[in-house]
This record gives sequence, C-alpha cells and structure tokens, in this order.
Amino acid sequence: MKILIVGGNGTIGKKVVEGLSKKHDLIIGGRNTGDVSVDISSSASISELFKKIGKLDSIVCTAGTGYYGSFDEMTQEHIMPGIYGKLLGQINLVLIGKNFLNPEGSITLTTGIAATHPARNGSCVAMINGAINSFVLAASQELREDKRINAVSPGLVEDSKERYGEFFPGYNLVSMSKLVNAYILSIEGAVNGKILKVYS
Amino acid sequence: MKILIVGGNGTIGKKVVEGLSKKHDLIIGGRNTGDVSVDISSSASISELFKKIGKLDSIVCTAGTGYYGSFDEMTQEHIMPGIYGKLLGQINLVLIGKNFLNPEGSITLTTGIAATHPARNGSCVAMINGAINSFVLAASQELREDKRINAVSPGLVEDSKERYGEFFPGYNLVSMSKLVNAYILSIEGAVNGKILKVYS
Repeated sequence: MKILIVGGNGTIGKKVVEGLSKKHDLIIGGRNTGDVSVDISSSASISELFKKIGKLDSIVCTAGTGYYGSFDEMTQEHIMPGIYGKLLGQINLVLIGKNFLNPEGSITLTTGIAATHPARNGSCVAMINGAINSFVLAASQELREDKRINAVSPGLVEDSKERYGEFFPGYNLVSMSKLVNAYILSIEGAVNGKILKVYS
Repeated sequence: MKILIVGGNGTIGKKVVEGLSKKHDLIIGGRNTGDVSVDISSSASISELFKKIGKLDSIVCTAGTGYYGSFDEMTQEHIMPGIYGKLLGQINLVLIGKNFLNPEGSITLTTGIAATHPARNGSCVAMINGAINSFVLAASQELREDKRINAVSPGLVEDSKERYGEFFPGYNLVSMSKLVNAYILSIEGAVNGKILKVYS
C-alpha cells in the first residue's frame, strides 16, 4: 500500500512509521521535515501535496495541536490556530484527499481523550477532538468506493509523560504499542466510522 | 432571573421563551429581530451586546446553523459560516459572556443529534455539534463562582417536520415540550456539564 503519514516525524507519527510493515510504500508529510512538505492549515498546501504524490491507498494524520491554557484568558485568537490546523486541516485532508484515494483506501485522523475527558486548560483541544470525532462518524457514511475513515483517540501516551504528564493528573498512561496498533487497525483492518479510543 | 436568549425568535427559541416562567426578565437577542441586536459570528458584536445589557443570570443560545449538503462537493468555504456562527459564536458567548454572568448563573448552548447520529449531508453540522458538546464538558470544569454550563442536543423536533423531515428518514420526532423542558432544566435546575440529549 502507498501510505501518506502527515506528521510522520512527530512523537506518535514516528512510532506509527516504525510499526507499519516494511512492505508498504510510506510517504512522510511534514511542515519542515519528511518526504513531502505540507502545511495542513492551508487547503492550498494540501491540494498541492496530493497533486504531487498522486493516487494512494491510505492517508494518516498524526499532526496538529491546539491551545492549552487558561480558560479565563482564552479568546478566539487562541483558538484559531487549532481551528485551522488540527480541525480544518484534518477535514481538508479528507475532503481533498478522498479524491486521491484508491477504492477501498482508508483515512485515519487523530483526536484524543479530551473529547470526552478534558483536563484543566483543555477546552480548546476538547472542542477540536469532539469536532473531528463527530465528523468521522458522518464522513464514514458518505465516502464511496468502499473507502473508510476512522479516528484514533489517544489518552496520555507513555512517551509524553515527561513533557505533558503534569498537566494530566490522574490520567492513566497508554502504551505506545497499543496506540500504534489502533492506527494499524484503521489502516490495514476493516473498521469504518470508528473512534478508536486508546485509553482507559 | 435576567435571561438572555440569543435566537429567541427562531423556531426553538420562541418556544423556550413561551415555556419560561413569566417571573423572569427575558431579553431576546437576534440578528435582525428581538430586544437587542447581535451577530454571534462576530466576537465584537457579542462584546457590544453584553456591555449593553450588563450583568445577568442566564445566557441561552438557540441560534446558529451549519452547512447541510453534498459531502462530495463540500469545501472549506461551505464550512466557514458554521465555524464562525454556530461554533465560535457559541464559544464566544461563553468566553465573553461568563464575565457578565452573576454567581450561580448558567449558560445553555444548543447542539444536536448529528454529533452522534449524523444524517446524510450532515458532516459539517455533526462536526460543529460534536465540538460544542466537548467544549461544554471542558468549560463546566473551568467556570468559577458556581456558574454552570450545559448543551441541549435536540433530535428532529416535531415543529421542523414539514421543513426538514425528508432529510432525516427514520429519525424519531421529538416533542417541542420535551425539548423546552431540557432548556428549563439547564436554566432553572442544578445540572452542570451535561449534554441534555432530547432524542431517542
């Protein structure tokens, strides 16, 4: 399979790349690193990307972040980068990318535990994750030619404990191998329209 | 209680106004109708609104729509009005409005069944509803001075059957009185951080 992994050089993306079978043809997309350059906050950049790489079998996105910070001081300005990046960025990967996807191809987006169990300071990210989860439910009904779409929704991953652990008191750590398996299930499995929750 | 109802002249808003006790001081906000004018897609307009009406006990939003239409032809352009209106509009009502809310005051937003059971052509609205649902979960943890926030999530309301019924085959009709009760529960009750689903 020819697989595009947007964010394939990030913490999660790297492990997904490692976990996928070597028989696949992997294309890493990133803003500054990888095989192809893409800024997912720009629909024009996404269009360019797909025109460059042509038809493919699987689109995976592990990129995109949103604002974490004081709710009291949060304004629309804090929210917009996440809206254009993780929210519209992932939606545009679907809306534009579906036309470059071979029949029976799949799209795998990334959301997160904040959609249902938001931590303090996480209302912006919660909002984005909830948006993508519901979008995936709807889009899975619309895709034709047996194309599939799922979201992987990670909890606090063990590899992020050092960096983010203090912001998530009481959140159980998720093993990276379990998380990578969710991506593999979406890419190589048969599931469609699922929110693959990797947390407990 | 002094209650602002944004969208109070819409199909649902009107019935909420009728259903609320006459002892309350109701202020209807609308783009072109009502007691005060507001365009929720503009944060400046929302700020103006609150400066005009001052402190209050309850903020209710029944306004805002999103794109319904062909998934295949959908682009970011179709999505943006809903992002600025129903999504950021409701979020800004919270972020700005919370500072004008008296202690123990409440905020009630409106989402919908599409978040979990999207109909065909409904991926944009599903996305927005899912976003607001998750935002409400997060915001309920952040509000101080015993302020509360909930979302009412209507199914297909009986009053909308003529206009929208054909787009929702197999969706059970919800009685308007049951829907109005969910708003009253949020406004006058004690619930906080709930998605009040009014569908079955």
